[in-house]
Amino acid sequence: MQRYFMTEPYEVREHYEITGENYHHMIRVMRMEPTQQVYLVFSDRIALIAEITEVTEEAVRLKEISKEQGEKELPVNVTIACGFPKGDKLDLVIQKTTELGVHKFVAFPAKNSVVKWDHKKLVKKAERFKKIATEAAEQSHRQFAPDIVLLENKLELIDSFSAYDKILIAYEESAKTGEKSRFAQALAETKIGDSILLVFGPEGGFAPEEIEAFEKNGGILCGLGPRILRAETAPLYALSVISYQFELV
Amino acid sequence: MQRYFMTEPYEVREHYEITGENYHHMIRVMRMEPTQQVYLVFSDRIALIAEITEVTEEAVRLKEISKEQGEKELPVNVTIACGFPKGDKLDLVIQKTTELGVHKFVAFPAKNSVVKWDHKKLVKKAERFKKIATEAAEQSHRQFAPDIVLLENKLELIDSFSAYDKILIAYEESAKTGEKSRFAQALAETKIGDSILLVFGPEGGFAPEEIEAFEKNGGILCGLGPRILRAETAPLYALSVISYQFELV
Repeated sequence: MQRYFMTEPYEVREHYEITGENYHHMIRVMRMEPTQQVYLVFSDRIALIAEITEVTEEAVRLKEISKEQGEKELPVNVTIACGFPKGDKLDLVIQKTTELGVHKFVAFPAKNSVVKWDHKKLVKKAERFKKIATEAAEQSHRQFAPDIVLLENKLELIDSFSAYDKILIAYEESAKTGEKSRFAQALAETKIGDSILLVFGPEGGFAPEEIEAFEKNGGILCGLGPRILRAETAPLYALSVISYQFELV
Repeated sequence: MQRYFMTEPYEVREHYEITGENYHHMIRVMRMEPTQQVYLVFSDRIALIAEITEVTEEAVRLKEISKEQGEKELPVNVTIACGFPKGDKLDLVIQKTTELGVHKFVAFPAKNSVVKWDHKKLVKKAERFKKIATEAAEQSHRQFAPDIVLLENKLELIDSFSAYDKILIAYEESAKTGEKSRFAQALAETKIGDSILLVFGPEGGFAPEEIEAFEKNGGILCGLGPRILRAETAPLYALSVISYQFELV
């Protein structure tokens, strides 16, 4: 069943009206008709099963059938921060981390980031990423689409560290030296409702001065197993494990 | 440090010689010179640190410096089987599952597979996939590249079930009904050295008769959490979790 995100919070109403892009998708792309049902997800994360009652030239009207049952969101708040990788790899990372339950996605210029994005480019990229995240959130049946924040400066990332219960830095050198328990230990200490920041480098990893700054501000260096994961794979590994640990075990 | 797979098993020798594609990569692409070091990984999974002693027009000669230390391979044998997905999604799945440690990769025509590949196409695809897997295995510092098997018939997959200690079927309907413990339970029962087969559907999932045949032959239906993962994401989730469970916890 299709899923549509609404920009407003939930209110009990006789009818809900959909216009704009969602209208286009429902009527022009999916060719929906009265009596068909969809999910409507409001900005306060309340999701309804709703039935189409009327289709006009510009709007779809729907009525509430019931609330969606079941929690779809990770019970810990995970923010993923990635150093800008090459090419369009962030497209993939944002789509996949959204499916896997990320709450907020941050990208920042790391020392080894090859791409240089100016302010104008960042605004355009952020728009594109938000669209990718919203589509992935709809497809994976989430109750909200993650925030996307593109930083112009690495210091903003480090300044944000204090807002988190735990900051984990994925560090290839930790993996190479056989470090293998810090990630598991950090997760064992994490409680439902905690907020975790996971930080990943670009291709080429972090520079020593970045690692030093992260550690000085409370970051814990972790390996993610004995194989070297590419920049875009490591965040998927970490999020999958967090989902398993908090949703399946 | 670069990593090259050799087709022969390891033998103690004064010199090892590299020709062909690996030669091309070392000398033409990486412009390596004598005294530089690389990893050589033999077909019996023994890996050396080796140093270049001589470069000719057609071959590179290297001498053994030491054996590579540390286990890079998952301590359980994981085979991933995917129903043929759309487009070139298998490229991504094969690259990523190789990084994440898959031992063998199987793809098969599922009922909902949209693509139809004839024998000739399968042979060509298998070659391409093998190359992707080899490159990913080199990059992620593995001790071998996974086998790639493309089946012409789904029955061959089911016939292979008896070769595994455990067969887990990722099933969206299990996730939707809130089933959430079978995957964790199956992993808890798995011992080092066991072989596991994980089976994933194409877009659109498995047909009821496929699920029935899988279950009849010992497959266990599992959900992978409350969010709906795309066909190409679910295998990465499962492998990440297996790595975590057996390599980090």
